Amino acid sequence: MKLLTLARDLRRRKARERQHLFVVEGVRATEELLRSNLQILGALVAPQLLNAPRGAQLRETLVRNGIEVAEVKELEFASAAETESPQGILVVAEVPERSFKTLPVDKQLRLVVLDAIQDPGNVGTIVRTAAAFGVHGVVALPGTVDLWNAKVVRAAMGAHFHAHAFHASLEELLQYQSESGVAFWGADVGGDALGGIGQPADRLALAFGNEGSGLTAAVRDHLDRSIAIPISEQVESLNVAVSAGILLHAFRLSEPSS
Amino acid sequence: MKLLTLARDLRRRKARERQHLFVVEGVRATEELLRSNLQILGALVAPQLLNAPRGAQLRETLVRNGIEVAEVKELEFASAAETESPQGILVVAEVPERSFKTLPVDKQLRLVVLDAIQDPGNVGTIVRTAAAFGVHGVVALPGTVDLWNAKVVRAAMGAHFHAHAFHASLEELLQYQSESGVAFWGADVGGDALGGIGQPADRLALAFGNEGSGLTAAVRDHLDRSIAIPISEQVESLNVAVSAGILLHAFRLSEPSS
Repeated sequence: MKLLTLARDLRRRKARERQHLFVVEGVRATEELLRSNLQILGALVAPQLLNAPRGAQLRETLVRNGIEVAEVKELEFASAAETESPQGILVVAEVPERSFKTLPVDKQLRLVVLDAIQDPGNVGTIVRTAAAFGVHGVVALPGTVDLWNAKVVRAAMGAHFHAHAFHASLEELLQYQSESGVAFWGADVGGDALGGIGQPADRLALAFGNEGSGLTAAVRDHLDRSIAIPISEQVESLNVAVSAGILLHAFRLSEPSS
Repeated sequence: MKLLTLARDLRRRKARERQHLFVVEGVRATEELLRSNLQILGALVAPQLLNAPRGAQLRETLVRNGIEVAEVKELEFASAAETESPQGILVVAEVPERSFKTLPVDKQLRLVVLDAIQDPGNVGTIVRTAAAFGVHGVVALPGTVDLWNAKVVRAAMGAHFHAHAFHASLEELLQYQSESGVAFWGADVGGDALGGIGQPADRLALAFGNEGSGLTAAVRDHLDRSIAIPISEQVESLNVAVSAGILLHAFRLSEPSS
C-alpha cells in the first residue's frame, strides 16, 4: 500500500489494530521516535518541513537510517495529518509487541492501570507522568482510548515510545497480579485519605477510572485498597491526570536525580 | 444587541474584554454558574435542550430566576456555540470584578500565578486544582490565555465561578507581594528538589510557566526561590497542570475534610 494511503487509513483505530501500525506527527515526536527502539516503516514529507526548525536535518537523518521517505504535496499531506498546522513530517511505525510477559521483573514494581479513561489528552499525560516517575508499565483496560491514537501520542510527548504501555484485559491483569504478588490499589473519591496511609507494597498496581464515572464496578471489586486525595467541598473532583500525578509522585519508588 | 449576536461576538477575546462578558455552555456548567454569585445576562436555548438530562428542569430554573431566555433554532445555536455537540444551552454572564484588592485577607495565603500559559485545557485544569486545594486566588499574567475563554471555562468545570481567578500585570503582582509580605516561588526544572525543602511561608505565591519555554525572565528575576519536581532523565518535563497539581498538593495549607 502507498504510504499516503496507509497513513490516511491509520487514522481509524480498527486499521491500527489490524495492521499493528500507528502514526507519529511533527519534528519533535519523530526525533523522539528515532531515539526509541520502535520499527519505522516509512515517512511522509511535505515541502513545508524545510521551513520547520531542524526539519531539513531530520529529513537527512531519516534517509541516512535507510527509512523510505515519500514526498507529497502540502494538500495530500494535510489529508493524512491530524494536527491543524502540520509541520510536514509524519512517520508510520510498528506498535511494539508488549504484554505482561515483556514487563521487567524487579523486586519493586509500579504499574498504572487505565480503567476506561476516554480523553486522549488525559491518557497521554498520564503515560508521560508515569514515565517521569519511573513507573514500569501502563496497562490500558478495555474502554480506554487507543494508546496509539495520534492525540494520545502527542500528549505523551514520546513517553510511550520508551515506556511499557500496552492494552490488556482485566483477566490478564488479575492473573499477572496474583502470580506476581502485586497489590492492586485504585484512586476513588470514597477511599482512604492519602495523608493517612503509609508506604505501599513493593509491588503495586494503581488504577485510575473514567473522567465522569470513576472506576468500573469490575475493577472496584478486585481492589485491595482505594485511595482518595482530600479536596475542598467546593470542587467535585480533580482532573484524572492531576490525580494520577499526585499519587504517582506520592508512591514513587525512589527520588530520581533531577 | 440580540443575545444570539452577542454570544457569537463573545467568541473573540477582545469582545469579552470590552464588554466584561463571557459565555458558559452546557447543562452542568450552567447549573454551576447558577450556584455562584455571578450575574447572568441571558440564556440562549435550542430545542435539543429538552433531550438533555435535567435540560427541561434547567430551563424552568432560568425562567423562575427572571433570566431572559431566547429560543433559537438548532443551526442558529450552533453558530454561537463552541462545543462540537452542543446540549442546547448557552448563558451569557458578567466577568466578575476581581483584583488584588478583592482578595481575602488571611494570615495564611496561597496564590497561583500563571506566567504565559497558553493551553486553555491546562489553565482550566490548574484553576480547578487550585480551587480543590483551597488556593485563595489565581493570577493570570500577560501572555496567558483568557481565563474567560470557553475552553478554559469548560476545563475548569465551574471552578472559577467561585474561585478568585483574575488577570493582572506583573507590576501589580509585585506591588501586592511586597505590601502583603507574600513569598514568591516558582516551578522551574533548575530549582531546588521538592523533597528537600521544608514548609513554605504562611503567605506564598507559586508561579508556573509556559508549556514550552517555562517561566519568563521577568518572573524568574523576582522569585525568592525556585522549586523542581525531580523526574526520570528519560522524560524532558511534566505537563504544567500535573506539576501544579503536585506542588499545590504539597504546599496546601491544611487537609480539607474528604
